[in-house]
Amino acid sequence: MLIVQKYGGSSVADAGRIKKVARRIAGVKKEGHDVVVVVSAMGDTTDYLIELVKSITSNPGEREMDMILSTGEQVSIALLAMAVKDQGLEAISMTGPQAGIFTDSVHTKARIKEIQCDRVKEELAAGKVVIVAGFQGLNGTGDITTLGRGGSDTTAVALAIALQADLCEIYTDVDGVYTADPRVVKNARKLDDISHDEMLELAHLGAQVLHPRSVELAKIYNITLQVRSSFNHNPGTIVREVSGMEKTMVVTGVAHDLNVARIGLFDVPDRPGIAWKVFRALAGEHINVDMIIQSATRNGVNDISFTVATSDLQKALAVMEKIKDEAGFSGYTWDDGIAKVSIVGAGMATNPGVAARMFEALAKRNINLEMIATSEIRISCIIKSGQAQEAVSALHDEFGLAG
Amino acid sequence: MLIVQKYGGSSVADAGRIKKVARRIAGVKKEGHDVVVVVSAMGDTTDYLIELVKSITSNPGEREMDMILSTGEQVSIALLAMAVKDQGLEAISMTGPQAGIFTDSVHTKARIKEIQCDRVKEELAAGKVVIVAGFQGLNGTGDITTLGRGGSDTTAVALAIALQADLCEIYTDVDGVYTADPRVVKNARKLDDISHDEMLELAHLGAQVLHPRSVELAKIYNITLQVRSSFNHNPGTIVREVSGMEKTMVVTGVAHDLNVARIGLFDVPDRPGIAWKVFRALAGEHINVDMIIQSATRNGVNDISFTVATSDLQKALAVMEKIKDEAGFSGYTWDDGIAKVSIVGAGMATNPGVAARMFEALAKRNINLEMIATSEIRISCIIKSGQAQEAVSALHDEFGLAG
Repeated sequence: MLIVQKYGGSSVADAGRIKKVARRIAGVKKEGHDVVVVVSAMGDTTDYLIELVKSITSNPGEREMDMILSTGEQVSIALLAMAVKDQGLEAISMTGPQAGIFTDSVHTKARIKEIQCDRVKEELAAGKVVIVAGFQGLNGTGDITTLGRGGSDTTAVALAIALQADLCEIYTDVDGVYTADPRVVKNARKLDDISHDEMLELAHLGAQVLHPRSVELAKIYNITLQVRSSFNHNPGTIVREVSGMEKTMVVTGVAHDLNVARIGLFDVPDRPGIAWKVFRALAGEHINVDMIIQSATRNGVNDISFTVATSDLQKALAVMEKIKDEAGFSGYTWDDGIAKVSIVGAGMATNPGVAARMFEALAKRNINLEMIATSEIRISCIIKSGQAQEAVSALHDEFGLAG
Repeated sequence: MLIVQKYGGSSVADAGRIKKVARRIAGVKKEGHDVVVVVSAMGDTTDYLIELVKSITSNPGEREMDMILSTGEQVSIALLAMAVKDQGLEAISMTGPQAGIFTDSVHTKARIKEIQCDRVKEELAAGKVVIVAGFQGLNGTGDITTLGRGGSDTTAVALAIALQADLCEIYTDVDGVYTADPRVVKNARKLDDISHDEMLELAHLGAQVLHPRSVELAKIYNITLQVRSSFNHNPGTIVREVSGMEKTMVVTGVAHDLNVARIGLFDVPDRPGIAWKVFRALAGEHINVDMIIQSATRNGVNDISFTVATSDLQKALAVMEKIKDEAGFSGYTWDDGIAKVSIVGAGMATNPGVAARMFEALAKRNINLEMIATSEIRISCIIKSGQAQEAVSALHDEFGLAG
């Protein structure tokens, strides 16, 4: 088998853990498998580099941020390659560019365009463990780019696709995917199995364990993921096209996300093209808009509310200030004291009344819903952030998710 | 003018110093010059990375060492580019590979083969300050290499040649080139001017301020170097083809080097090709041999002594063990408690008796000479390392070098 393994920053946080990962890799290799390993930067390296940048300037520029941040993974691949060689195996480290990972030019949030993995294949054929830096690539002008949050997951899945790997293992510091965040809900249960679609929704909704981009890629190319802990040998959670018995469950998991802020626009003219202007301007700054709600028209004007990541709020407000006159709205407001709480389940589509149960469970606890959004397999509500923990527990109980 | 500036690790050791360097660059740029800056890793970054490696393995492999060590410069170029932009200038950082620096494949000691500097030229033409990582390049198979000790100096001079720069400034933490190490000889005097040849000898003989490879390159391509302090605006020392009044001085400077070890071979058969075998084997391991002395033949066998850098001693001894039987010598000994003390001066060639004065000055202080080597413009002696300081002071006085 050809196995792609991805180890996150906490799995390679110090020399002891790096050696432990090397022993795990050696175990898999000795079973006769070929192994490609994707690694993140060690523990708090990225935070350290960001502090260093702050000591220089408050306006570093995104190209230079990518230049400095990409060194974090370059350090960890070299160290892991050394540790794997100490296990008596052949190993070689490769930066993203060396592994042939080509991206677009959106610094700090680049997307992978193509992987030219001839060199990786050659080294595998020579019997080596190939250790690739996650999170980074090269754009068309030869500049180093980074893939943004969850970038190493994306690197791993993209490599698994390009190499036609049999399995892609995502190692992290928890045992797998849970019915809710175990730090918030004490009796949250680990799932053995989940579908790509459900995982995608959970990931979008704030489950930290996998980044949505990587799940999306895995879904499109039908790659089976195994989410596992690097601290033990438990089997973790399998993410695959059709999940087994979980499919019959109405609700698979509850997710919450505190990285949400709401912007409200007043008196938006009810003319075609106005909303387009607003959201095109946000897209132009690479700001993802999540939920959008437009109130009923009244006197030829609308109120429009939408949510963005809290980290994008200042940039989004600057865009609103800039386009205010052109778009013709009278003013705007914002709120970053909110959270998004969601339920996800493939069985939801065929079970009416799930939304009503959710709203009732929240109403009983005096939790007010500020915005609501639904898809075939999930329902999300915006509530006050102070009530998020209570809401998650209430929904976990309501849908019987405890172990 | 097009000016290449090189800043060593102590000049960019922290945020304050990086900002200071940025202001200096801005000053030069605002005078209307184009500037390419070569930077080393910040202060003790390299030591930190080496410690990290030691926590993983005692046998890291040279390719992986280059992979991890090259991150040091990548951090400092990004930070310096940010700081220069904060001065209101356009700036762009480039790794060695991005700057088109191609080397051979001798990891940790690579030599530059070619510089393809189209991208550097483009960015200069666009009005940017170009900030290049010193010490690193790319080999023919796309692997990152490092240039070994003094690598950043070499990068700077090689870029100055490739770009046909008007001047190459080497910034360091001392005011320039001195008649002897100012830490050892209190009244050592800064030289205003020195020839390439003299500088080359001094650099080879242990003067830390410039690496011999960079001086050699500067000599071959007739590049004028200016060695200056990054902590003040003193003019420093000019290194150029023909030095002015210094040429008439018999002795320009005194150098000493503690990084020397001696290996002695016993009973080497006096047959053609034996010495060649020994030194070819050392060259094959990229070990530089400095002084070689062969005693007069006695009973068809010779004794041969030679010196290597202390850091290469263990490797050299391993080579001796390996070739002992084939080369036919009966045994070997070694000593790393030695130092090389040298005097350098372009006027020496035309002034007989300089060697005699040197030997007399040392003999008067009971300093024994274990090996002697000479060139047209220098004389070097191997002595006990404990007497090095006294020897340097004695020679500095003997040849009237004090300020």
